[in-house]
Amino acid sequence: MTKDPAQSQPTCPIARALTHVGDAWSLLILRDAGLGLTRFEQFRQSLGIAPNILSRRLAALTEAGLLERRAYSEHPPRFEYLLTEMGRDFGPVLHAIGAWGRRHGGPAPLSVPVDAETGVPVEPVVVDGPTGRPIGSFPIRLRQP
Amino acid sequence: MTKDPAQSQPTCPIARALTHVGDAWSLLILRDAGLGLTRFEQFRQSLGIAPNILSRRLAALTEAGLLERRAYSEHPPRFEYLLTEMGRDFGPVLHAIGAWGRRHGGPAPLSVPVDAETGVPVEPVVVDGPTGRPIGSFPIRLRQP
Repeated sequence: MTKDPAQSQPTCPIARALTHVGDAWSLLILRDAGLGLTRFEQFRQSLGIAPNILSRRLAALTEAGLLERRAYSEHPPRFEYLLTEMGRDFGPVLHAIGAWGRRHGGPAPLSVPVDAETGVPVEPVVVDGPTGRPIGSFPIRLRQP
Repeated sequence: MTKDPAQSQPTCPIARALTHVGDAWSLLILRDAGLGLTRFEQFRQSLGIAPNILSRRLAALTEAGLLERRAYSEHPPRFEYLLTEMGRDFGPVLHAIGAWGRRHGGPAPLSVPVDAETGVPVEPVVVDGPTGRPIGSFPIRLRQP
Protein backbone atom coordinates (compact mmCIF):
# COMPACT_ATOMS: atom_id res chain seq x y z
CA MET A 1 0.00 0.00 0.00
CA THR A 2 1.27 3.46 -0.82
CA LYS A 3 -1.36 4.84 1.55
CA ASP A 4 -3.52 3.53 4.34
CA PRO A 5 -7.01 3.06 2.90
CA ALA A 6 -8.56 3.45 6.34
CA GLN A 7 -7.50 7.10 6.32
CA SER A 8 -9.69 8.02 3.36
CA GLN A 9 -12.52 5.67 4.40
CA PRO A 10 -12.73 6.00 8.15
CA THR A 11 -16.11 4.28 8.59
CA CYS A 12 -15.44 1.19 6.43
CA PRO A 13 -14.67 -1.92 8.48
CA ILE A 14 -13.13 -3.64 5.44
CA ALA A 15 -10.66 -0.79 4.93
CA ARG A 16 -9.99 -0.86 8.66
CA ALA A 17 -9.22 -4.58 8.56
CA LEU A 18 -6.98 -4.22 5.51
CA THR A 19 -4.74 -1.84 7.42
CA HIS A 20 -3.57 -4.98 9.24
CA VAL A 21 -4.25 -7.84 6.82
CA GLY A 22 -4.05 -6.12 3.42
CA ASP A 23 -1.14 -7.95 1.85
CA ALA A 24 -0.52 -11.52 0.80
CA TRP A 25 2.54 -12.15 2.96
CA SER A 26 0.76 -11.11 6.15
CA LEU A 27 -2.15 -13.41 5.31
CA LEU A 28 0.18 -16.33 4.60
CA ILE A 29 2.04 -15.75 7.87
CA LEU A 30 -1.31 -15.90 9.69
CA ARG A 31 -2.16 -19.07 7.79
CA ASP A 32 1.13 -20.69 8.81
CA ALA A 33 0.72 -19.54 12.42
CA GLY A 34 -2.68 -21.23 12.40
CA LEU A 35 -0.98 -24.41 11.21
CA GLY A 36 1.34 -24.29 14.22
CA LEU A 37 4.44 -22.55 12.91
CA THR A 38 5.97 -20.18 15.47
CA ARG A 39 9.61 -19.47 14.61
CA PHE A 40 11.23 -17.07 12.18
CA GLU A 41 13.07 -19.85 10.39
CA GLN A 42 9.92 -21.95 10.05
CA PHE A 43 8.03 -19.07 8.43
CA ARG A 44 10.99 -18.26 6.18
CA GLN A 45 11.25 -21.80 4.90
CA SER A 46 7.52 -22.26 4.47
CA LEU A 47 7.03 -19.02 2.55
CA GLY A 48 10.31 -18.69 0.67
CA ILE A 49 10.21 -15.06 1.75
CA ALA A 50 13.16 -12.67 2.03
CA PRO A 51 14.26 -12.31 5.69
CA ASN A 52 13.91 -8.53 5.74
CA ILE A 53 10.34 -8.72 4.42
CA LEU A 54 9.47 -11.45 6.92
CA SER A 55 10.92 -9.36 9.78
CA ARG A 56 8.83 -6.37 8.80
CA ARG A 57 5.62 -8.39 8.47
CA LEU A 58 6.11 -10.16 11.80
CA ALA A 59 6.76 -6.83 13.50
CA ALA A 60 3.67 -5.26 11.90
CA LEU A 61 1.41 -8.17 12.84
CA THR A 62 2.77 -8.07 16.40
CA GLU A 63 2.31 -4.30 16.59
CA ALA A 64 -1.27 -4.67 15.29
CA GLY A 65 -2.07 -7.26 17.96
CA LEU A 66 -2.51 -10.35 15.76
CA LEU A 67 0.71 -12.02 16.94
CA GLU A 68 2.42 -12.10 20.31
CA ARG A 69 6.22 -12.25 20.46
CA ARG A 70 7.61 -14.43 23.22
CA ALA A 71 11.17 -15.34 24.15
CA TYR A 72 11.90 -19.06 24.02
CA SER A 73 15.64 -18.75 24.64
CA GLU A 74 17.63 -16.19 26.62
CA HIS A 75 21.15 -17.19 25.51
CA PRO A 76 21.12 -16.51 22.66
CA PRO A 77 17.94 -14.39 22.67
CA ARG A 78 15.36 -16.08 20.44
CA PHE A 79 11.67 -15.36 19.94
CA GLU A 80 8.62 -17.16 18.73
CA TYR A 81 5.38 -15.72 17.40
CA LEU A 82 2.01 -16.95 18.59
CA LEU A 83 -1.47 -16.01 17.42
CA THR A 84 -3.39 -13.79 19.82
CA GLU A 85 -7.16 -14.11 20.16
CA MET A 86 -7.45 -11.36 17.52
CA GLY A 87 -5.19 -13.33 15.20
CA ARG A 88 -6.97 -16.63 15.76
CA ASP A 89 -10.28 -14.89 15.04
CA PHE A 90 -9.02 -14.24 11.50
CA GLY A 91 -8.65 -17.98 10.84
CA PRO A 92 -12.22 -18.48 9.59
CA VAL A 93 -11.70 -15.65 7.07
CA LEU A 94 -8.63 -17.47 5.74
CA HIS A 95 -10.75 -20.60 5.32
CA ALA A 96 -13.30 -18.55 3.37
CA ILE A 97 -10.51 -17.20 1.14
CA GLY A 98 -9.28 -20.77 0.62
CA ALA A 99 -12.74 -21.99 -0.35
CA TRP A 100 -12.94 -19.24 -2.98
CA GLY A 101 -9.44 -20.21 -4.16
CA ARG A 102 -10.53 -23.83 -4.61
CA ARG A 103 -13.54 -22.75 -6.66
CA HIS A 104 -11.71 -20.20 -8.81
CA GLY A 105 -7.97 -20.69 -8.43
CA GLY A 106 -7.35 -23.03 -11.32
CA PRO A 107 -7.22 -26.72 -12.11
CA ALA A 108 -4.18 -28.05 -10.25
CA PRO A 109 -4.74 -30.34 -7.25
CA LEU A 110 -5.23 -28.34 -4.08
CA SER A 111 -5.29 -29.20 -0.40
CA VAL A 112 -8.66 -29.63 1.29
CA PRO A 113 -9.59 -28.80 4.90
CA VAL A 114 -11.12 -31.75 6.71
CA ASP A 115 -12.59 -32.30 10.14
CA ALA A 116 -9.54 -33.48 12.12
CA GLU A 117 -11.56 -36.18 13.86
CA THR A 118 -13.79 -37.55 11.12
CA GLY A 119 -11.78 -36.69 7.99
CA VAL A 120 -14.93 -35.30 6.36
CA PRO A 121 -14.17 -32.33 4.06
CA VAL A 122 -15.12 -28.94 5.47
CA GLU A 123 -16.94 -26.49 3.19
CA PRO A 124 -16.51 -22.93 4.49
CA VAL A 125 -19.47 -20.67 3.67
CA VAL A 126 -20.14 -17.15 4.91
CA VAL A 127 -23.63 -16.89 6.39
CA ASP A 128 -25.62 -14.45 8.48
CA GLY A 129 -25.14 -15.93 11.96
CA PRO A 130 -28.60 -15.32 13.43
CA THR A 131 -30.56 -16.57 10.38
CA GLY A 132 -28.08 -18.94 8.70
CA ARG A 133 -28.79 -17.41 5.28
CA PRO A 134 -25.73 -17.41 2.98
CA ILE A 135 -24.27 -13.93 2.44
CA GLY A 136 -24.85 -13.14 -1.23
CA SER A 137 -28.27 -14.84 -1.34
CA PHE A 138 -30.22 -11.74 -0.25
CA PRO A 139 -29.77 -7.97 -0.76
CA ILE A 140 -27.55 -6.17 1.73
CA ARG A 141 -26.96 -2.44 2.08
CA LEU A 142 -24.54 -0.56 4.28
CA ARG A 143 -25.86 1.61 7.06
CA GLN A 144 -23.49 4.47 7.81
CA PRO A 145 -22.82 5.25 11.48
CA MET B 1 4.24 -8.88 -3.66
CA THR B 2 7.80 -9.33 -4.74
CA LYS B 3 6.97 -12.91 -5.70
CA ASP B 4 3.83 -14.92 -6.40
CA PRO B 5 3.20 -17.06 -3.30
CA ALA B 6 1.29 -19.62 -5.36
CA GLN B 7 4.56 -20.53 -7.07
CA SER B 8 6.21 -21.81 -3.91
CA GLN B 9 2.98 -23.29 -2.51
CA PRO B 10 1.25 -24.84 -5.48
CA THR B 11 -1.31 -26.88 -3.54
CA CYS B 12 -2.51 -24.13 -1.17
CA PRO B 13 -5.87 -22.66 -2.18
CA ILE B 14 -5.26 -19.59 0.00
CA ALA B 15 -1.99 -18.81 -1.78
CA ARG B 16 -3.77 -19.44 -5.07
CA ALA B 17 -6.52 -16.97 -4.17
CA LEU B 18 -4.02 -14.34 -3.02
CA THR B 19 -2.44 -14.31 -6.46
CA HIS B 20 -5.59 -12.42 -7.49
CA VAL B 21 -6.83 -10.79 -4.30
CA GLY B 22 -3.65 -10.37 -2.25
CA ASP B 23 -3.51 -6.60 -1.92
CA ALA B 24 -5.67 -4.01 -0.24
CA TRP B 25 -6.44 -1.92 -3.33
CA SER B 26 -7.73 -4.92 -5.28
CA LEU B 27 -9.98 -5.87 -2.37
CA LEU B 28 -11.31 -2.33 -2.05
CA ILE B 29 -12.02 -2.16 -5.80
CA LEU B 30 -14.01 -5.39 -5.46
CA ARG B 31 -15.85 -3.92 -2.48
CA ASP B 32 -16.74 -0.79 -4.48
CA ALA B 33 -17.78 -2.85 -7.51
CA GLY B 34 -20.11 -4.78 -5.19
CA LEU B 35 -21.60 -1.46 -4.08
CA GLY B 36 -22.40 -0.61 -7.70
CA LEU B 37 -19.42 1.48 -8.83
CA THR B 38 -18.39 0.73 -12.42
CA ARG B 39 -16.35 3.59 -13.84
CA PHE B 40 -12.69 4.53 -13.51
CA GLU B 41 -13.48 7.96 -12.14
CA GLN B 42 -15.91 6.55 -9.57
CA PHE B 43 -13.28 4.15 -8.25
CA ARG B 44 -10.62 6.85 -8.27
CA GLN B 45 -12.77 9.22 -6.22
CA SER B 46 -13.97 6.55 -3.81
CA LEU B 47 -10.50 5.21 -3.09
CA GLY B 48 -8.34 8.31 -3.39
CA ILE B 49 -5.99 6.10 -5.37
CA ALA B 50 -3.35 7.23 -7.89
CA PRO B 51 -4.65 6.77 -11.48
CA ASN B 52 -1.72 4.59 -12.57
CA ILE B 53 -2.20 2.23 -9.62
CA LEU B 54 -5.94 2.06 -10.27
CA SER B 55 -5.31 1.27 -13.96
CA ARG B 56 -2.98 -1.57 -13.07
CA ARG B 57 -5.35 -3.06 -10.49
CA LEU B 58 -8.36 -2.89 -12.82
CA ALA B 59 -6.35 -4.55 -15.60
CA ALA B 60 -5.13 -7.30 -13.26
CA LEU B 61 -8.62 -8.00 -11.88
CA THR B 62 -9.98 -8.10 -15.44
CA GLU B 63 -7.16 -10.38 -16.57
CA ALA B 64 -7.80 -12.68 -13.61
CA GLY B 65 -11.49 -12.92 -14.45
CA LEU B 66 -12.97 -11.05 -11.47
CA LEU B 67 -14.03 -8.02 -13.53
CA GLU B 68 -15.34 -7.69 -17.05
CA ARG B 69 -14.45 -4.57 -19.07
CA ARG B 70 -17.26 -3.28 -21.28
CA ALA B 71 -17.46 -0.25 -23.55
CA TYR B 72 -20.19 2.20 -22.64
CA SER B 73 -19.19 4.89 -25.15
CA GLU B 74 -17.57 4.61 -28.56
CA HIS B 75 -16.81 8.31 -29.17
CA PRO B 76 -14.80 8.86 -27.11
CA PRO B 77 -14.00 5.25 -26.16
CA ARG B 78 -14.96 4.71 -22.52
CA PHE B 79 -15.16 1.53 -20.47
CA GLU B 80 -16.87 0.33 -17.36
CA TYR B 81 -15.93 -2.55 -15.09
CA LEU B 82 -18.50 -5.08 -13.90
CA LEU B 83 -18.13 -7.97 -11.48
CA THR B 84 -18.10 -11.39 -13.13
CA GLU B 85 -19.60 -14.38 -11.35
CA MET B 86 -16.11 -15.13 -10.01
CA GLY B 87 -15.86 -11.57 -8.70
CA ARG B 88 -19.34 -11.59 -7.14
CA ASP B 89 -18.48 -14.88 -5.45
CA PHE B 90 -15.78 -13.04 -3.48
CA GLY B 91 -18.37 -10.69 -1.94
CA PRO B 92 -19.14 -12.93 1.05
CA VAL B 93 -15.41 -13.07 1.87
CA LEU B 94 -15.33 -9.27 1.93
CA HIS B 95 -18.23 -9.31 4.37
CA ALA B 96 -16.30 -11.76 6.57
CA ILE B 97 -13.27 -9.42 6.47
CA GLY B 98 -15.55 -6.52 7.40
CA ALA B 99 -17.03 -8.42 10.34
CA TRP B 100 -13.51 -9.06 11.64
CA GLY B 101 -12.70 -5.37 11.09
CA ARG B 102 -15.69 -4.34 13.19
CA ARG B 103 -14.61 -6.64 16.00
CA HIS B 104 -10.93 -5.70 15.97
CA GLY B 105 -10.45 -2.55 13.89
CA GLY B 106 -10.72 0.02 16.62
CA PRO B 107 -13.25 2.20 18.38
CA ALA B 108 -14.42 4.71 15.77
CA PRO B 109 -17.98 4.40 14.41
CA LEU B 110 -18.12 1.99 11.50
CA SER B 111 -20.72 1.17 8.88
CA VAL B 112 -22.89 -1.90 9.42
CA PRO B 113 -24.33 -4.22 6.76
CA VAL B 114 -28.09 -4.61 7.08
CA ASP B 115 -30.73 -6.65 5.29
CA ALA B 116 -31.82 -4.25 2.53
CA GLU B 117 -35.47 -5.12 3.05
CA THR B 118 -35.81 -5.37 6.82
CA GLY B 119 -32.93 -3.14 7.99
CA VAL B 120 -31.87 -5.83 10.46
CA PRO B 121 -28.06 -5.92 10.94
CA VAL B 122 -26.30 -8.81 9.20
CA GLU B 123 -23.67 -10.75 11.15
CA PRO B 124 -21.32 -12.57 8.75
CA VAL B 125 -19.93 -15.79 10.21
CA VAL B 126 -17.90 -18.47 8.42
CA VAL B 127 -19.45 -21.90 8.95
CA ASP B 128 -19.12 -25.38 7.52
CA GLY B 129 -21.97 -25.38 5.00
CA PRO B 130 -23.20 -28.97 5.40
CA THR B 131 -23.22 -28.96 9.23
CA GLY B 132 -23.57 -25.26 10.06
CA ARG B 133 -20.76 -25.46 12.64
CA PRO B 134 -18.72 -22.25 12.91
CA ILE B 135 -15.22 -22.59 11.47
CA GLY B 136 -12.83 -22.27 14.42
CA SER B 137 -15.13 -24.15 16.80
CA PHE B 138 -13.72 -27.60 15.95
CA PRO B 139 -10.28 -28.92 14.89
CA ILE B 140 -9.48 -28.82 11.19
CA ARG B 141 -6.48 -30.27 9.39
CA LEU B 142 -5.39 -29.95 5.77
CA ARG B 143 -5.45 -32.98 3.54
CA GLN B 144 -2.85 -32.70 0.81
CA PRO B 145 -3.93 -33.71 -2.69
